[in-house]
Amino acid sequence: MTYCIILAGGVGSRFWPLSRYNKPKQFLKFSFGKSLIAQTLARVAPLAKKENIYIATNKDYARELKSCLKAKDISGVKFFYEAQGRNTFPSIAVLTKRIYDSDKDALILVCPSDHCIEQENKFLKGIRRGLRAAESGWIVTLGVVPLGAETGYGYIQTGVRLKGAQEELFKVRKFIEKPSLEKARKFIKHGGYYWNAGIFIFRARVLLEEIRKVSLPDYRLLEGITGEPSLKRAWTRLSATSIDYAVMEKTDKIALIPAEFPWSDLGSWKSLEPFMKKDIKGNIMRKNSLDLDSRNIVSWSGKRLLVTLGLNDLIIVDTDDALLVCSKDRAQDVKKIVELLKQQKFHAQI
Amino acid sequence: MTYCIILAGGVGSRFWPLSRYNKPKQFLKFSFGKSLIAQTLARVAPLAKKENIYIATNKDYARELKSCLKAKDISGVKFFYEAQGRNTFPSIAVLTKRIYDSDKDALILVCPSDHCIEQENKFLKGIRRGLRAAESGWIVTLGVVPLGAETGYGYIQTGVRLKGAQEELFKVRKFIEKPSLEKARKFIKHGGYYWNAGIFIFRARVLLEEIRKVSLPDYRLLEGITGEPSLKRAWTRLSATSIDYAVMEKTDKIALIPAEFPWSDLGSWKSLEPFMKKDIKGNIMRKNSLDLDSRNIVSWSGKRLLVTLGLNDLIIVDTDDALLVCSKDRAQDVKKIVELLKQQKFHAQI
Repeated sequence: MTYCIILAGGVGSRFWPLSRYNKPKQFLKFSFGKSLIAQTLARVAPLAKKENIYIATNKDYARELKSCLKAKDISGVKFFYEAQGRNTFPSIAVLTKRIYDSDKDALILVCPSDHCIEQENKFLKGIRRGLRAAESGWIVTLGVVPLGAETGYGYIQTGVRLKGAQEELFKVRKFIEKPSLEKARKFIKHGGYYWNAGIFIFRARVLLEEIRKVSLPDYRLLEGITGEPSLKRAWTRLSATSIDYAVMEKTDKIALIPAEFPWSDLGSWKSLEPFMKKDIKGNIMRKNSLDLDSRNIVSWSGKRLLVTLGLNDLIIVDTDDALLVCSKDRAQDVKKIVELLKQQKFHAQI
Repeated sequence: MTYCIILAGGVGSRFWPLSRYNKPKQFLKFSFGKSLIAQTLARVAPLAKKENIYIATNKDYARELKSCLKAKDISGVKFFYEAQGRNTFPSIAVLTKRIYDSDKDALILVCPSDHCIEQENKFLKGIRRGLRAAESGWIVTLGVVPLGAETGYGYIQTGVRLKGAQEELFKVRKFIEKPSLEKARKFIKHGGYYWNAGIFIFRARVLLEEIRKVSLPDYRLLEGITGEPSLKRAWTRLSATSIDYAVMEKTDKIALIPAEFPWSDLGSWKSLEPFMKKDIKGNIMRKNSLDLDSRNIVSWSGKRLLVTLGLNDLIIVDTDDALLVCSKDRAQDVKKIVELLKQQKFHAQI
């Protein structure tokens, strides 16, 4: 049977002032009609039964989660509330163990809830190919074919194509953190590098076996979980790290399937651009906005009228209680603004 | 006796969204603590008794006028509500006639209500010198010594210094509309040119006599005013033009006294800058604002938090129902925005 773990515990402050502490990116709709997490849920719906879908999230987000997902969409879906955010490894490990305990042959798809994916048929096709490869024992990641020398993403370097595999499946050589522009350009020129989209597919049994191999203490902790009290104890002791670092970078069972759907991890306001409709002057405008002679701006109006005059390459975001005007090339530094707000005790706006 | 006519009927849309149809510039406080018109009233208070001060304004502004002036400051002050705005000549002419009818030796100071003047002692000194010159029959204008080749102001070219005058008083040769940059530079280089601040001082008798000389039909209309009905009839027939064009540019009784107080007609958001406090990065910030790495911006926050990141030379103005982000070099075009709002029927925000 196929299961799905949706990771929805991310914090993220780069979409401030639209995103807030209790409303991180995954709960935002942007202009998509529904929130990123609602889109994620809809995207995996054809792959797993509702009862086999787990949403792992922070308990502080419980209210926001319920308010941005329709009751009919989540009936049957299981929620796993993390006691404290401890990165992705503990949630995935605990849920994998839980699923394995009731289904020894379980196949699991892990995916983030705060990414943007278009052309869902291509996504589903990629996942189905991944599921077939996972059935034969591989831990599969979907690697996005890079569109350019992007420095905001992690990369995965592939090695040989695996012989005998029905699918186009490559051995993974290396996970690479966000590179310099120079390095990113080399990757693109060289070929065989893919963007790490954080999507993994594996048999529960295989992942647990790999955890045993690369981190016996974590495996022992998982074995010891029999109910809530033992989970609570284990939770604070499991390695607080990413699944990438804890397992994927260490196992030799990892393989990659190239995927070509339009994708972004939405790391900043700027990264949203390719998914938005622009006018002939390159501006992204919302309905409560009016412009004269601006170019390449994002005019993210709220309830009030937002008027722009003679601007270039800016991002403007209006909300009820806070307003951001930001140079586009500083979009990555919006997180610094949130730090400043904390320092200067603007608690209401964090 | 000295009288004062404060002109407060101006429309002006260059401070949108802070200024609105029913709240033009003269009613704005900016950061000065009190509105421009309240400042004007305070500035002329040492020169004329309350009962001798007239405020000429549009009837649509009656409410705003009362709300931005304190009851004790306007007790005794006379209000002249213009039936329709018809530029400055009709108000000045009608009020001058009215004052003359009860005081044949009246001296009148005319001044705008929407300019910014600092160092009021210099202003008062200039006016007192002007009053003395006006007593001997001159129509005096205070010319501001130009600080640079500004293209946003009208200029006055002076001729010979008048002999025998106690004051530094120059014959006026020419009124010049807002010049090109090239011309403005020539004026500064040449010397003898002053900024036209719209401040005039004259004997009521002298101005009426000059009106008779340069525009007999207007003079006849003034003579015919005996009460409200005849005023109403005359109002729509008096030349709807500026006092400059109707009289000052045509009379040979006009003389200029140089004045050196810091002055601006506040023609745009940009012109406000010299009167505001800047931080070390050249930014004008209000209390509800927070910046990281911007230079030379105006961050005019309203009730909400205004955050700026990595900006240069921008003006941002936040109000309850509308928000403007504008390149500083386009500040003059804010009036075009108001036109656009009319066209696109954003009635609430005009």
